[in-house]
Amino acid sequence: MQPHSSVLPSFEDVRAAARRLDGVAHRTPVVRSRALDERCAAHVFVKCENLQRMGAFKFRGAYNFLASLSPAERAGGVVAYSSGNHAQGVALAASLLGMQATIVMPDDAPAVKLAATRGYGAEVVLYDRAQANREEIAEEVARARGATVVPPFDDARIVAGAGTAGLELLEDAGTLDALVVPMGGGGLACGCALAAHGIDRAIDVFGVEPEAGDDFRQSLARGERIAIDVPRTIADGLQTVQPGALTFALAREHVRDVVTVADSELAAAVRFAFERMKLVIEPSGAAGLAALLAHRIGGLEGRRVGVVVSGGNVDPAQYARLIAS
Amino acid sequence: MQPHSSVLPSFEDVRAAARRLDGVAHRTPVVRSRALDERCAAHVFVKCENLQRMGAFKFRGAYNFLASLSPAERAGGVVAYSSGNHAQGVALAASLLGMQATIVMPDDAPAVKLAATRGYGAEVVLYDRAQANREEIAEEVARARGATVVPPFDDARIVAGAGTAGLELLEDAGTLDALVVPMGGGGLACGCALAAHGIDRAIDVFGVEPEAGDDFRQSLARGERIAIDVPRTIADGLQTVQPGALTFALAREHVRDVVTVADSELAAAVRFAFERMKLVIEPSGAAGLAALLAHRIGGLEGRRVGVVVSGGNVDPAQYARLIAS
Repeated sequence: MQPHSSVLPSFEDVRAAARRLDGVAHRTPVVRSRALDERCAAHVFVKCENLQRMGAFKFRGAYNFLASLSPAERAGGVVAYSSGNHAQGVALAASLLGMQATIVMPDDAPAVKLAATRGYGAEVVLYDRAQANREEIAEEVARARGATVVPPFDDARIVAGAGTAGLELLEDAGTLDALVVPMGGGGLACGCALAAHGIDRAIDVFGVEPEAGDDFRQSLARGERIAIDVPRTIADGLQTVQPGALTFALAREHVRDVVTVADSELAAAVRFAFERMKLVIEPSGAAGLAALLAHRIGGLEGRRVGVVVSGGNVDPAQYARLIAS
Repeated sequence: MQPHSSVLPSFEDVRAAARRLDGVAHRTPVVRSRALDERCAAHVFVKCENLQRMGAFKFRGAYNFLASLSPAERAGGVVAYSSGNHAQGVALAASLLGMQATIVMPDDAPAVKLAATRGYGAEVVLYDRAQANREEIAEEVARARGATVVPPFDDARIVAGAGTAGLELLEDAGTLDALVVPMGGGGLACGCALAAHGIDRAIDVFGVEPEAGDDFRQSLARGERIAIDVPRTIADGLQTVQPGALTFALAREHVRDVVTVADSELAAAVRFAFERMKLVIEPSGAAGLAALLAHRIGGLEGRRVGVVVSGGNVDPAQYARLIAS
């Protein structure tokens, strides 16, 4: 995958994104839990991006991207390929900005996700997973309509937008020693790392991947971007197969370590959030929490630790199984 | 039931409670939802007491009560009878204040609730529902140990403590035209009404009861406290059979109207909060939200409406059924 913009975003880009999102995105709450603090032996500050508009942090990057387009680009509309939160983020952002959005989704996507995406006013183009490549379809739509493709993570505007979640967390929690963030394509983790290091270079930033999908961990260890097979994990939002070019460069500079969590640990974190925090979190969104609860990161005892919960869009039947297990 | 203190609480009592709770209770977030605003055609501000310590607003009143006791009273410890959130609120408050707490619970109470109450360090005394009266057992324990009984709602300190949720909502949301609050014993609704009218006498305060448990609605209509049979409803926290003496007096002065919601509307509100707000709410806690979603209160179009979500302590199996239905 090629980066869609080769310039690395800066802390100033995160602050500019925060100005664009002011009054548009929810300033989601930072919550505390005594039960969580006790389990982690730390002071934990939880940034609730599951309470963000459309239920995930993805709205931030999408809106920042769309709001940064020129009038001519805006007139052409946007295209995105995603069956998940990115699709809904782009659809909602386009609707707010009065732009046309086309979302390329697999024809076996859950009906509820198709309906949600259409509910935000987007046109959905379906494709057959076995027959077609979604990126090619998106490029085709873009060419035919003069539309702009909105990349899911490997873009300076997407990363800067996602980073505003970290900026708000830092502003609301005060000084932090560490920041723990779910890591799929790396947009959220790298954006939050940029925000953290713009404020205090001493903050240790940790990314969290599912065990089966440790492309970032492996890539950082080898010093080059490696690709893995599509990982089998309940964290459907963290199934990326390769770090982005931009996010890999940012992670090398700003992410201290990447740790992994098992699916059983993700499920346990979803249950913990249900029982003790009364928050609905999707498995991918619980990766940071899972790493803390499973003590996957050493040296946090007694420290002030921020963790980003990235989303809450989970199917009721799956959620019922997760909390009952 | 006799009031445990015959003096009506005032707005100043709510403010004093807020000072006691500062840094002890969570200042729970006030969240917005575009989907909710659209469904209600209003600007809705949701106060998330499901995110309060021990998962419900009950901690506020319990802590305010215990912190108001004299040193001699504190030394004698406290007793409460409850199988629900009041038990855990008292147990947690006592633990924080270094006091002994005894909770009288039915011997068929769910194991998870017994464990949670004991987890906060309280001693649990079990009784047989068929054989014994829990109030008498609590009084007996109180006499034998020199302990103070903590009433569940009909007490100035409990009402004032609960009212701090309303005070915070008003402070965080800014001007409100109306306030909608679940109503069981009336402690929360009356406390929030006191807070609202201390700030702005023009705010319309509405209480919400389950259809089967409309003791407040009937009592206010008749102008006297009437008792009903124990209501059959999924709102297990709103199964009171008679308004308190204090809360009835306060409701006559401060509550504009009491509306009711069907169990199916409570379930729909729990589902809505899961799907669109990513919040875990127990059926009782969703009463205010249910009244808004079911349009049980007229004249709110275009207005600024606060609603208190009072708790999130719900059994996983029951929750799974609610969100799947």
